[in-house]
Amino acid sequence: MKIKAGIIGATGYAGAELVRLLSAHLGIESIAVSSVSFEGKLLSEVYPSFYQLCDLRLVPQQQVLDSCDVVFGAVPHGLSEKLAVQCKQHGSLFIDLGADFRLESEQDYADWYGGSYSDKELHSSAVYGIPELFGDSVRQARLIANPGCYPTSTALGLAPVIAGLVDTDSIVIDAKSGVTGAGRGLTQNTHYPDCNENFAPYKVAEHRHTPEIEQTLSVLAGKPVMVTFVPHLLPINRGILSTIYSRLLDKVSCTELWALYSDYYKNSKFVRVLPEGSIASIRSVKYSNYCDISLHVDKRTDRLIVVSAIDNMVKGAAGQAIQNMNLAMGLDEDTGLCLVPPCF
Amino acid sequence: MKIKAGIIGATGYAGAELVRLLSAHLGIESIAVSSVSFEGKLLSEVYPSFYQLCDLRLVPQQQVLDSCDVVFGAVPHGLSEKLAVQCKQHGSLFIDLGADFRLESEQDYADWYGGSYSDKELHSSAVYGIPELFGDSVRQARLIANPGCYPTSTALGLAPVIAGLVDTDSIVIDAKSGVTGAGRGLTQNTHYPDCNENFAPYKVAEHRHTPEIEQTLSVLAGKPVMVTFVPHLLPINRGILSTIYSRLLDKVSCTELWALYSDYYKNSKFVRVLPEGSIASIRSVKYSNYCDISLHVDKRTDRLIVVSAIDNMVKGAAGQAIQNMNLAMGLDEDTGLCLVPPCF
Amino acid sequence: MKIKAGIIGATGYAGAELVRLLSAHLGIESIAVSSVSFEGKLLSEVYPSFYQLCDLRLVPQQQVLDSCDVVFGAVPHGLSEKLAVQCKQHGSLFIDLGADFRLESEQDYADWYGGSYSDKELHSSAVYGIPELFGDSVRQARLIANPGCYPTSTALGLAPVIAGLVDTDSIVIDAKSGVTGAGRGLTQNTHYPDCNENFAPYKVAEHRHTPEIEQTLSVLAGKPVMVTFVPHLLPINRGILSTIYSRLLDKVSCTELWALYSDYYKNSKFVRVLPEGSIASIRSVKYSNYCDISLHVDKRTDRLIVVSAIDNMVKGAAGQAIQNMNLAMGLDEDTGLCLVPPCF
Amino acid sequence: MKIKAGIIGATGYAGAELVRLLSAHLGIESIAVSSVSFEGKLLSEVYPSFYQLCDLRLVPQQQVLDSCDVVFGAVPHGLSEKLAVQCKQHGSLFIDLGADFRLESEQDYADWYGGSYSDKELHSSAVYGIPELFGDSVRQARLIANPGCYPTSTALGLAPVIAGLVDTDSIVIDAKSGVTGAGRGLTQNTHYPDCNENFAPYKVAEHRHTPEIEQTLSVLAGKPVMVTFVPHLLPINRGILSTIYSRLLDKVSCTELWALYSDYYKNSKFVRVLPEGSIASIRSVKYSNYCDISLHVDKRTDRLIVVSAIDNMVKGAAGQAIQNMNLAMGLDEDTGLCLVPPCF
Repeated sequence: MKIKAGIIGATGYAGAELVRLLSAHLGIESIAVSSVSFEGKLLSEVYPSFYQLCDLRLVPQQQVLDSCDVVFGAVPHGLSEKLAVQCKQHGSLFIDLGADFRLESEQDYADWYGGSYSDKELHSSAVYGIPELFGDSVRQARLIANPGCYPTSTALGLAPVIAGLVDTDSIVIDAKSGVTGAGRGLTQNTHYPDCNENFAPYKVAEHRHTPEIEQTLSVLAGKPVMVTFVPHLLPINRGILSTIYSRLLDKVSCTELWALYSDYYKNSKFVRVLPEGSIASIRSVKYSNYCDISLHVDKRTDRLIVVSAIDNMVKGAAGQAIQNMNLAMGLDEDTGLCLVPPCF
Repeated sequence: MKIKAGIIGATGYAGAELVRLLSAHLGIESIAVSSVSFEGKLLSEVYPSFYQLCDLRLVPQQQVLDSCDVVFGAVPHGLSEKLAVQCKQHGSLFIDLGADFRLESEQDYADWYGGSYSDKELHSSAVYGIPELFGDSVRQARLIANPGCYPTSTALGLAPVIAGLVDTDSIVIDAKSGVTGAGRGLTQNTHYPDCNENFAPYKVAEHRHTPEIEQTLSVLAGKPVMVTFVPHLLPINRGILSTIYSRLLDKVSCTELWALYSDYYKNSKFVRVLPEGSIASIRSVKYSNYCDISLHVDKRTDRLIVVSAIDNMVKGAAGQAIQNMNLAMGLDEDTGLCLVPPCF
Repeated sequence: MKIKAGIIGATGYAGAELVRLLSAHLGIESIAVSSVSFEGKLLSEVYPSFYQLCDLRLVPQQQVLDSCDVVFGAVPHGLSEKLAVQCKQHGSLFIDLGADFRLESEQDYADWYGGSYSDKELHSSAVYGIPELFGDSVRQARLIANPGCYPTSTALGLAPVIAGLVDTDSIVIDAKSGVTGAGRGLTQNTHYPDCNENFAPYKVAEHRHTPEIEQTLSVLAGKPVMVTFVPHLLPINRGILSTIYSRLLDKVSCTELWALYSDYYKNSKFVRVLPEGSIASIRSVKYSNYCDISLHVDKRTDRLIVVSAIDNMVKGAAGQAIQNMNLAMGLDEDTGLCLVPPCF
Repeated sequence: MKIKAGIIGATGYAGAELVRLLSAHLGIESIAVSSVSFEGKLLSEVYPSFYQLCDLRLVPQQQVLDSCDVVFGAVPHGLSEKLAVQCKQHGSLFIDLGADFRLESEQDYADWYGGSYSDKELHSSAVYGIPELFGDSVRQARLIANPGCYPTSTALGLAPVIAGLVDTDSIVIDAKSGVTGAGRGLTQNTHYPDCNENFAPYKVAEHRHTPEIEQTLSVLAGKPVMVTFVPHLLPINRGILSTIYSRLLDKVSCTELWALYSDYYKNSKFVRVLPEGSIASIRSVKYSNYCDISLHVDKRTDRLIVVSAIDNMVKGAAGQAIQNMNLAMGLDEDTGLCLVPPCF
């Protein structure tokens, strides 16, 4: 039986990418889309790429909620709780691409996002959806918090070593994201002449993804972990590359680390641990759901350097959301996601 | 029965794009690849995108020729005739992505490419493969000349009006191509700092695609057509946009032209005649096999301006080659090619 | 005696470029700047490049008008007439970077911009400031209409041949501009992910620079000239390249044309007629006041192809405005403008 | 008395930038240029930007050595010692833009570059030319080692705190460079379609600038310092941005750090310590000799994050070389270098 999928907030970048990927997904029967700003219009009026292909009309939000088995929320934070409540009542799976269900600690949510949790039980039922790390929970979930793009790339990069191999006080994450990460909304920073031929960090050591990164690392480490996290804006459309520094507790060779990572991810189709000597790059994962990881040891300072690359819109958003849907709906994890990244 | 496909010259850009597209093509049983420069290596050593996914080993050319039902030639001009001869003997379909079989006139080939035709009968059996214009011939073909990228975008842009609606002496084609059109080989012009933040024409009024463009237009017009053709190098990876100017013989409105084009292409899945008021762009066709066409009339000067956009590597090379293969092998024309262009 | 210069609208792109160039101009005593949006702020709050260097405070417009010998207007069209009136009363030179004084025909202004001329005498006193073509008038002027970027590149490209050498009915101008041409204001088209890796024309055959182009060509030709003009948006920050097509009335060789152009511009320091075989490019004029012109003949179709490249913000705006100021104030034409374009 | 300047290796990127900057330098009488690859040609045949402006003819190297007061070496490492010897004999100032005189320890040079020092006395006479840190020595120098681009940005970023304020074992330098840093020579990595829309580190923890960075930091700290240094390739033409992480030994506020840095650089015209809350960016220093520094404290982890941005071709190469020349020749430090960075 095929799935009736719905997207609330379909004209944002993550929403549009969901449309594109779901329209080629063999397990999908239909797609319904809504958008506050463009209700009543065709998707192609916002994204001419879709003309004549998956050119859905944007209906009211309630129509999506009432008619779908799976609902993806791609709305600004603070708006998802109500959607989740309705999906629960309706018996549908809700996958939130925003931040509202990612943080277990309501205090963290209050500190970093400035809101509170109305329905605490609902929040405690949410599953944080990185399939490679929490796949068993995802399979049982009816409410999935789809992770942020930076946290996805960081968690996958550090998971195999965080518990016991590196000094958890020593972690520095220097991350760089393409401009789609900032969304479709217009800002001076993403105005072409401001952004092009430029490069700079932003929200230095105060980005909202920090507590989300720390939450996952703490779970995996079995103890509280704090990191320094600095994101930068790259003048490219897509992709995140995180360069992750930590101090090795003992001497370990690159070869041993490679074996460790390869084993850790041996059943994870979408994580590619690159051969020794290779270096992960954004180019090799663009337009795909893969996370590429390369491992480097600075023997002079005993630091491990993990380079982790994803497409921020696919593995960092829409692709991972579909991967989560596949697991929760009993489909093969990679259905609709076997996209070979183009070479250029 | 599925197809055994082979690619000779698989490490060039067109070859790599063929691998990517064929690896997701449901009618393909196997792919064999060869490359003079990288024989014996894995494709991922040249294109890390392919690691663990379609990571074929590059075998000797003869092995490809001996084992495949369909052979794609993606080699420099002058090398394809021998490949075609062998395919003919072997009974396989040969699709040449180079220029060796595109020009009917050996004189034109001599003038623009500096070579001659050894096997004239073979040359006269070649079908020029723009499926939207010459689909019936393609279906019968055993030797297909896959068109150049510029000629594809131009021919589709002018086909509906070239016979009778525009002054065939008035045609000016101002075309702009992404840098992949120049290939994987290193040149000063395609060195990043030379190319980035730059823009210029090249081979002004002397590009080799000129006789190919004129050949198709002449066939369609039923009389000799000469054009002025100026290509430019765009600082983007993919895509061709051609702005095509011609003088209208009679007053025709944009609405009438839109109806004419829509009717002309009503059975052509991969041509999208955009609604009046829209303007074709490279963004909307990137990574897809679509050709977008928009129509504009300069009433003050009675000129028709056709804007035609394709992805130079898909509809302008590998995608169209697969479209031709599909027709010649009796498959649905769009098998493996239903790629929705991403919005960003 | 040095000049007190003022800029009204100093936080737009042209205004900021004026600040940068004037701050290194040896004939300038002081610069006053105003901006409606940022009054009271420092320029560096808008453009951090200026921090500690030419970090002027934005004062009210009237203060600029009252205190300066030369006033540059860099405001949206429709606002300049009042500024010009005040400058006239105050005895200062007014140089308008907008469109309000460019068109001699009020009808043209009404048709393309939708306004009217209140003070017709004032309008008739305005000099259209392309120094290479109308330098003598500029030297006498007290009110200068600084030309549009596209018209500058086009007029310089065609001036030597428009009177008698080419068919004035055959002119097609295919122009491409960097994104700064669209200004500092935010639009979806200039949002980085929409603009990057994209290319398309805009305002096809209906851009407001069309009558301005035709006005200059008509003056030079001595008869009415109509052109087809299509601008495109290039994914680069700066520069305009125009590819200009026309039919030669008689056979002329490239060498003869080169001699003609070289002679025509022999006293024009800022026009470089490139040697035969060279092709003008945006890279070679970026961040400079030069206009590079290359000449090409399509012998097969008897068309002349002129390629004309400028930096849209310098020769296409702020640089030419300063060149006009220099002439009108009796300074050497190139004072403050001898910038060698960087190689990358 | 004006200076006769010479550039050996004038057709590389640093050499070309030297030509551009020196041609506008008021203290320069003449410029002589040599190039092994292009001897006898005009500079404009390599860089069309220079046509008619500073279009020098490339003469043999010996001619430059014999005729100049100041010689800039912009040649691959291993070739400078001979040039320095000749300059010493000739009594001219030699400024080496390569690595041959940067490392005091011959062992470090052997380990990282694979060569040895023939004339050890000559090497010990070389002054490492960061004017802001070692200006007094530079003023006396007759042989100047112009620093690498990454070491310049790093040393200026850490100098005020390295002695006593930060844990010298905790330093991580995540640096990102534009593509001109890789030079004019063609490589696959700098081929446009490979580089554009891509991002990746290279030479992870094994870049040759590592010992140079450590040498300066060790001198300033008064004890041996080792760092982890990872450079990345940015898809832009110019600029380096280094994000530098270290652990603060004591609680210090951003305000206190700002005061410290401002005082440290109070006489350094080319270092701009940005106001609290600002973030350094490449855009604000492009085409200029400024180093912008912004300071950030991660209070949660007690880390100092310094962001340091320069133009790799100006402050990171040609500009700093001229700054060094100015000091060593008794000119004002900023002669020829007062370039306001363009806003876009």
